[in-house]
Amino acid sequence: MADVDVIRQVLDGPWAELRQALRRDLDPDLFIPLDPENSLEEHRRDTTERLLRATEVISTHNVLEPSEPAKLVIASEMLGHANLSLFVKSGVQFGLFAGVIANLGTDRHRRDVLPKALDCSLLGCFAMTESDHGSDVQSLETTATYDPATDEIVITTPHPGAQKEYIGNAARDGRMAAVFAQLEVDGTNHGVHCILVPIRDEQGEALPGVWIGDCGAKMGLPGVDNGQLRFDAVRVPRTNLLDRYGTIGEDGTYSSPIDSHNRRFFTMLGTLVRGRISVGGAGAAAARSGLTLAVQHALGRRQFPNPLAGDEGELLLLDYQTHQLKLLPLIARSYALAAAQNELVGDLDRIERRRLESPELDDEHDRRELEARAAGLKAVQTRHTTDTLQICREACGGAGYMAVNRFAALKADTDVFTTFEGDNTVLLQLAGKALLTRYQTEVSDLDPVGIARFAARQVTGAMIERVGGSGLVQRLIARGRSREAESPLADRGGQLVLIEDRERHLLDTLAARMRSAPKDDPVAAAQVFNRCQDHLVATAEAHVERIALEALVEAVDEVGEPGAREVLDLVCDLFVHDLLHRHRAWYLEHGRISSGESKDVVRRRADLCAQLRPHAALLVEAFAIPAPWLTNELATA
Amino acid sequence: MADVDVIRQVLDGPWAELRQALRRDLDPDLFIPLDPENSLEEHRRDTTERLLRATEVISTHNVLEPSEPAKLVIASEMLGHANLSLFVKSGVQFGLFAGVIANLGTDRHRRDVLPKALDCSLLGCFAMTESDHGSDVQSLETTATYDPATDEIVITTPHPGAQKEYIGNAARDGRMAAVFAQLEVDGTNHGVHCILVPIRDEQGEALPGVWIGDCGAKMGLPGVDNGQLRFDAVRVPRTNLLDRYGTIGEDGTYSSPIDSHNRRFFTMLGTLVRGRISVGGAGAAAARSGLTLAVQHALGRRQFPNPLAGDEGELLLLDYQTHQLKLLPLIARSYALAAAQNELVGDLDRIERRRLESPELDDEHDRRELEARAAGLKAVQTRHTTDTLQICREACGGAGYMAVNRFAALKADTDVFTTFEGDNTVLLQLAGKALLTRYQTEVSDLDPVGIARFAARQVTGAMIERVGGSGLVQRLIARGRSREAESPLADRGGQLVLIEDRERHLLDTLAARMRSAPKDDPVAAAQVFNRCQDHLVATAEAHVERIALEALVEAVDEVGEPGAREVLDLVCDLFVHDLLHRHRAWYLEHGRISSGESKDVVRRRADLCAQLRPHAALLVEAFAIPAPWLTNELATA
Repeated sequence: MADVDVIRQVLDGPWAELRQALRRDLDPDLFIPLDPENSLEEHRRDTTERLLRATEVISTHNVLEPSEPAKLVIASEMLGHANLSLFVKSGVQFGLFAGVIANLGTDRHRRDVLPKALDCSLLGCFAMTESDHGSDVQSLETTATYDPATDEIVITTPHPGAQKEYIGNAARDGRMAAVFAQLEVDGTNHGVHCILVPIRDEQGEALPGVWIGDCGAKMGLPGVDNGQLRFDAVRVPRTNLLDRYGTIGEDGTYSSPIDSHNRRFFTMLGTLVRGRISVGGAGAAAARSGLTLAVQHALGRRQFPNPLAGDEGELLLLDYQTHQLKLLPLIARSYALAAAQNELVGDLDRIERRRLESPELDDEHDRRELEARAAGLKAVQTRHTTDTLQICREACGGAGYMAVNRFAALKADTDVFTTFEGDNTVLLQLAGKALLTRYQTEVSDLDPVGIARFAARQVTGAMIERVGGSGLVQRLIARGRSREAESPLADRGGQLVLIEDRERHLLDTLAARMRSAPKDDPVAAAQVFNRCQDHLVATAEAHVERIALEALVEAVDEVGEPGAREVLDLVCDLFVHDLLHRHRAWYLEHGRISSGESKDVVRRRADLCAQLRPHAALLVEAFAIPAPWLTNELATA
Repeated sequence: MADVDVIRQVLDGPWAELRQALRRDLDPDLFIPLDPENSLEEHRRDTTERLLRATEVISTHNVLEPSEPAKLVIASEMLGHANLSLFVKSGVQFGLFAGVIANLGTDRHRRDVLPKALDCSLLGCFAMTESDHGSDVQSLETTATYDPATDEIVITTPHPGAQKEYIGNAARDGRMAAVFAQLEVDGTNHGVHCILVPIRDEQGEALPGVWIGDCGAKMGLPGVDNGQLRFDAVRVPRTNLLDRYGTIGEDGTYSSPIDSHNRRFFTMLGTLVRGRISVGGAGAAAARSGLTLAVQHALGRRQFPNPLAGDEGELLLLDYQTHQLKLLPLIARSYALAAAQNELVGDLDRIERRRLESPELDDEHDRRELEARAAGLKAVQTRHTTDTLQICREACGGAGYMAVNRFAALKADTDVFTTFEGDNTVLLQLAGKALLTRYQTEVSDLDPVGIARFAARQVTGAMIERVGGSGLVQRLIARGRSREAESPLADRGGQLVLIEDRERHLLDTLAARMRSAPKDDPVAAAQVFNRCQDHLVATAEAHVERIALEALVEAVDEVGEPGAREVLDLVCDLFVHDLLHRHRAWYLEHGRISSGESKDVVRRRADLCAQLRPHAALLVEAFAIPAPWLTNELATA
């Protein structure tokens, strides 16, 4: 029998120790479901209290240390298992509010404000989104105008559509907001910048010129006090500008280390990548909670007399093929996404540490890569969250519909993840465009023959940036390509080649279509781009899925224990076959597999589910979600 | 420009007049969202009050007349647009409680109890599901034992797992329950029967021997008071047995017009088919509400500067290809499902009326057909509901997450539809088995050559029972088959052939696999059946989709007005291409289309979305959901 701890460590990755410590130290009371009968005010008060209690615990594990950028993401995953209001509340406070101070501020902000944000003595908001502009934050309309007469910045909401919208911590708790606004100095617009604006006094009353609204009831996240903010010529000192990438000197002149508005804006946004990574991680954690509940239920509940049940008479839900097909591919996907998340958090950690050590370093390439991957993985993970919780709820039938059994909150609370911290469709396009930019930079000057040669070269990894540094995937792929005679499906290398081929072909053809857009006709070009949107999204998804597979292959390769290794290899096989199953129409359309092989994929996927059925309990046990965090009344084995 | 009324009438079908009357007469106050801040008790009280008010209105339109079986389904659709608690509450009272009295009772029940159920002076429960048995209701464990000494029936819950579970109207309002239990007379079990059992006195207190629990908060449907019931030797008069299909005479002996337990049970269940049809209809109606909101939002909100926006600067959401691909195929599918629902309700109406007129008629074939179709269509419609509302919510971004914008309730309330009134996976298997049974009855004695001939014959409709009586589909298919040279995709007949071929091939191969199960080894046979579950489910879905397409083709064919006809033909084209897109892997695997044709499907589907884009407002306007029923704060054009 495979050892559950060995498998758990594969999922826990480099942060196994911190995860275990948090599993031990986070009080199960933090995860007691909010009573659905409570009022919004009670939910909010309760969540704020829990935030303060959780802060004490995570502080003892250095989760909030700016020098430990990955730890907050890991702690977020832990909260994401079972209290999403608390996850979002802490994400707003630490990830967004404290994060923007740490990342866009300079020494005085880090010295004077940051500590109060980190110990929760100053609760704050991250005021970016406006009613009229959510996805397109570069077009925000709130203005921040420097007034040299008083050495102040004047914050104004020019019209109702420019009010800050859905702002967490705004409706009840926030005392200060980090407000994104168009900065104007001496009549010149310098693009979107972030300014710290006090919004409430000590007694919690809105300050003069600040109007605060309440978004009221939402689909979920009742513990988060989302609200609206409007500013009527609110004045703050010049030094409240978070001025790392653009400052106003004592002489009242603007200066920035980055000339282009556009680049400056995206550099600022880029430093906020951790929030997106946290949402993806918390969403994936919630999906693992759902799978844990659904598998336990399916191993505890019997229905219909069936000869396969032997003396028990009625068969366990998980022994039905349809039930296995619902849950096991999602478990395999959860494993792959967890591995990809660990890789991504590792990249974040490396890049952020390097920046802290050598702030002058030009790491733009790495940061862009990180941002693109974070955008893509967040989209794929949160889609997985929504899909998984839906299927798990249904797999628990009527019991899954009762609030006491957790799905109501898990589903409703995570539902917004597909559209906040970036709408998934927009994020996938962003990730796709990043792939395309890199591609076009490298091939732009090639003629068709050169492009063909270039495409061939990609096989060796010139274009495809691989996960992990071990070279394992490279070696497997080389082996996969060399054995063309055998079925590509049976061999890990062959599988990797198939998955990678799809990404590469999608990118090649996408680039070709984009190049066909007329250079001198913006409308016609926009039409071409618009018609390529689905292609762009598919390319980004293929990229993320390839990355996830490689991460899983790398993680599994480190397992020596034969029992665990065998189970994990099956998980890897199932993930591959589930990917091929999802995309087999594409593989057939593009002659990558025969119709016989495609039917094999359908069959093998079902067979792999049956092979993993005996390990289902083990696979969810390795998610290592403390049972007291997930109290419920579902049938359990 | 196409006339919206012409298109509306296609959707409204034969009940256009009743629908219009209800749109006019149902007070918009019935659809004001329940305040999320209210307590469960307030939600329940409010919903009960609305039930009484709605009852007055629908009574004036003869919706509750037993002689008008279809009208309640139509009224349910109307409630389903915007108040699902009210839909379920009235469904429990009229569809289930009154329905079971009308269908399983005899004259004295219809005379003494039914009128009180229909005027809501007696609120009642439908107590079928038990904690341990939901899908497998034939294994219910509550007992009803006839005691000749007192001429009473004794109702007992033998253990906690046999308690009645999730019972609507139980926790607060119900005074009487229609309890399904194993009937035992003189030591012999006669299978599941239904008995009327008073559960509360006039003051609302539980009667002696009756224990009533409260399911408390659920994911949604806060206005429905679901509860549990346990019976400790509760005695009711013998005449409380609803005894149409099995009675206990004054001499204390049991008799039934149906010998087999099994057949008797399924005959009883079959009479309850209307509930399932109502749930499918209400779910589809809720999906149309979601699409209405999402399209209005996508035509009111602009995001990102884009050359295609001209002077407006920023482009409307619905002008983005990804947004069109999200919403328009779901609109087309909604049209097809609405047409199929109209067909199904028409069948129900015909069969029920015939039964009322000639109760002695043997209509088992027709009833089985109706039940199978109802099961399949309910599953496909409610899947569509959940998928559609999810996509529509996301298409409205953060605004879609706010309770005020209706998706929170629409999603949460309808979520249970995929598993109540029959779990969708179980229902599809039921529908698939019905297809298989008919198939095997007709082919069981054939040798392989005979089977091949039989398969060929099916083309002319021997096996495939078609929708509608006009012969139109038949003619189109014959024409489609005769022009093999042209692309099958461009011609309606060719499209119908493609869609039908899939159903037929799935059924042929399913039957072959099932036949391969060893007759003399139940365990080995059960293994074969288990491995065919996904095949069975796919066959049933293919059947429903084919039925839906035929229903849409028939409905569209009645439209003479050229503008409306053109739009509806595009809708039909898009539905076909969306079906082919979903299943194109299958078509490729089975050599039905070439890889070039498959790529064409992908392209054409996107093109059809773009072609329908200018008609999007019209298409949702034709859903004819009164605006005051759907108050919201989304951006609107």
